[in-house]
This record gives sequence, C-alpha cells and structure tokens, in this order.
Amino acid sequence: MTWRASILSLFPEMFPGSLGHSLAGRALERGVWSLAVHDLRAHGIGRHRAVDDTPFGGGAGMVMRADVVDTALSAHIAQDDPRPRVYLTPRGRRLQQDDARRYAAGPGVILLCGRYEGVDERVLEMHGIEQVSVGDYVLSGGEPAALVLLDTAIRLLPGVMGAQDSAGEESFSLGLLEYPHYTRPAVWRGCAVPDALLSGNHAAIAAWRGAAAERDTQARRPDLWQAHLQGQAPARLLADPSRTA
Amino acid sequence: MTWRASILSLFPEMFPGSLGHSLAGRALERGVWSLAVHDLRAHGIGRHRAVDDTPFGGGAGMVMRADVVDTALSAHIAQDDPRPRVYLTPRGRRLQQDDARRYAAGPGVILLCGRYEGVDERVLEMHGIEQVSVGDYVLSGGEPAALVLLDTAIRLLPGVMGAQDSAGEESFSLGLLEYPHYTRPAVWRGCAVPDALLSGNHAAIAAWRGAAAERDTQARRPDLWQAHLQGQAPARLLADPSRTA
Repeated sequence: MTWRASILSLFPEMFPGSLGHSLAGRALERGVWSLAVHDLRAHGIGRHRAVDDTPFGGGAGMVMRADVVDTALSAHIAQDDPRPRVYLTPRGRRLQQDDARRYAAGPGVILLCGRYEGVDERVLEMHGIEQVSVGDYVLSGGEPAALVLLDTAIRLLPGVMGAQDSAGEESFSLGLLEYPHYTRPAVWRGCAVPDALLSGNHAAIAAWRGAAAERDTQARRPDLWQAHLQGQAPARLLADPSRTA
Repeated sequence: MTWRASILSLFPEMFPGSLGHSLAGRALERGVWSLAVHDLRAHGIGRHRAVDDTPFGGGAGMVMRADVVDTALSAHIAQDDPRPRVYLTPRGRRLQQDDARRYAAGPGVILLCGRYEGVDERVLEMHGIEQVSVGDYVLSGGEPAALVLLDTAIRLLPGVMGAQDSAGEESFSLGLLEYPHYTRPAVWRGCAVPDALLSGNHAAIAAWRGAAAERDTQARRPDLWQAHLQGQAPARLLADPSRTA
C-alpha cells in the first residue's frame, strides 16, 4: 500500500524538492509513497487571501490564523484520516529516530508548515496536531523541516533503500555516536587506517570501535555521554532490536 | 559582499531546492548569497567513477573515499578559503542557533554532503572539516541537512527577512520554549483566546506567557527544563543580546 504524505504550506512549490531525486525520488515514481501538497493561501480570507494577523498580547511577527488552517485541513483531509498530524515548530518535542520508524510503519503523515511567528495554538489543539521540532535552530518556515521529517521516514519504507544504503541506523546504538569510518586506500597522503581495523581480529576491531565511539561522544555530545554514564540512554536512542543481536 | 555557499554532493540536482523559493530564493536572485554546487561523482575513480568502497574492519554499507573527496575539494576550493568547512553527519555536534549566527556573520560556508555509511575520517581531519548534526535521526544523505543549515544562516543575512518575518529568534530565549501564539478571531469555534492576552495589561500578558513557556518546556523538552532549573541554560540558547533588552 502506498505511504501517503499530505502537506499544507504557503510554498507548495518547495515540494517534492530534494525528495524528488535519488532514493526518495525513485520511490515516489514507483508509487512506494505519494505526495499531495495543498496551498494554504488558497484558503486565505478576503480579496487578498490573508492567512495571518498580528498576535494577541503584542510582540513581533505575524501569526497564521486558526480559521484559515482549519478550512484548509477540512477541505483536504478527511476527519477520520488515521495519519498522524504534525506541525513543524521549534516549540515542539524533538524529532528522534524512533519517530521516523513510527511514521514509516503507519499509513503516512499530514504535515502543517508554518511561516512567520507561528500558527494560532487553538487550531493545533482542535485537530490533535503533534508539535515536532527537527532541532534547536530557527528556520524560515516549516518546509525544510518537513523535507527532513519525510526523508527520515521514506528511507525506511520497504523497498526504498538498496543494499549499499541499508546501514546508518547504528548512529545512536547504545546511546553513543557511531565510530568513525575508513576505506581504501589503507595509506593515503601519509595517513594510515588504524591498525586494529586491518588486523582481521574481530575482538580488536570491536574494542577499537567502542573506544572511538566513546571518545567522540564525550567530545561532541556531552549530553549523550552523561545519559550513557548514568545508564539513562533513552530507549529512543537504541538501535533497532534486529540490529542489537 | 555576497555570502557564498559551496556544496559538494553526489546529488547536485537537489540544490537550491527549497532555497530557490520564498525569502532565500529572492535573496539568491538579488545576489545576497551565491550557490556553487560541485558533483563529487565527477571526481570518482576509473571508468565507473567509483566514489566509495567497503569499510575497513567490516560492517554494513559503503564509505566515501578520502582521495575522491580530497580531489573534489582541491579542484573547487582554494586552500586559503576562509569559509568554515562542514560535513553533515549524525556523528557531529548538534547544530544550534548560535552556529547559524556565526555562519551568517562570516563569508559563507563549504558543505560536504555524505551518502551511504559516511566519509573516510582521514579527509575530514586533513581538511579541518567540522562535523555537524542537524538532529538525532538518520537521513538518506547530507543534502536535506545542508538545506536546513543553509536556511538557518541565510534568513539571518542582512536584507533577507522582511518585517513580518523578523521574529522567531525568541524560541529559545532564557533556555525555554517560546510561548504559544494567538491571533484574530478572539473567539473561534467556541475557543477563546486566553483572557490575559486581551487584557492590555502588560504585566498580566508577560506573566501568562512566562507560565505558558514553562509549562510547555516541562512537557516537551525535559532536557531544557532541567538545564533551566539548574541555571545551566547554555549560552547558545539565549536570545540575541539585542533582543533581551
């Protein structure tokens, strides 16, 4: 069955964007997933198709109107549509790899992309829309975040990844960053690949990789390292059960 | 002076992608920033232009070769180019809003997009390439992450954002999520905007927003909330000095 992505955005021309190429693009052509993009502007109010207004309580920026988003949702999405509804916002909980797995395992997603200062909170509550953030930075709008969320889910759909693309899940196994990678040539511009990796000794390879993963996690992700030390590596950072064997 | 983005990728057709539209697209047309995209495949080895090989030490996936990436960098980027060099990878430190500010304040960025299992670590060290992650999830490649990183920086370039887009920096001020937003109509489908926001009483508005920001941060981002309680809200989460007045 086709995995269905529906997007509500003021910039429908941004889609499929990067998802129209490579693995995701070929999967879109083959019907592994489908994409419907709906222009929020078409549901704007009055002759100027207004979609936003000034925030109650004051402050900079404009807020997207609840009634406009509601009309757009009602026009394009059936009330009993079983797909999760997601609003991309830095106010949301953080997107994690287990969200990608959950989205990929379901029938698809409905993504609402905001612009300006955000969307009126009432329409998010009324429609049971999850608020999700792709990271602690501010984007020009929800569209690049939607492309990221879709990419994480689409690559997990059956038949999308080829054999050479099938790895990568290990990045957060055991709550640590993945170890560094090396390939041929064994010596390049005077730099040799670490001896252990050339030894053919599986225990030595595993020990080297474990130490490298610990070193890099300490240096780059003190948050993960602390959680690891305290045995609190959150379940969502563990690898797929199929990969921990 | 034009802010310059250079990208090395196996999928140059993914750029400018979403950055070719809206604010970033108009700024690109006006020459506020420029984009050069270089195809790594053109620097592949042999008749098949091979860019990757199997990992030393074993394991799934393929690794992009150090010599191929080195040749591409040497062909397109001057050795004394002052721009930061960034490799997008879940093994990197996390992208934060202050990175976006730092990139935007400089001459531009050079972005290396990986595919498959990753890039041979030696070429990253040899060229002083920063490893940066946009979030704790696995993408099909570095390209969607590069679009995100560029978006965060480009919107901060002088003249890119209009007045109605100029907010949004507050999302992480004081180490808390921003408060929710409301706009007209004041009553919509039986849901009223919180009284305090309609009161015209600045102290009541600030109190309501502060309480809402605390409530949402506790619920959605226990990590930020813990840091806030411990007075350890990292400097990188504070708002611009110009905005804390």
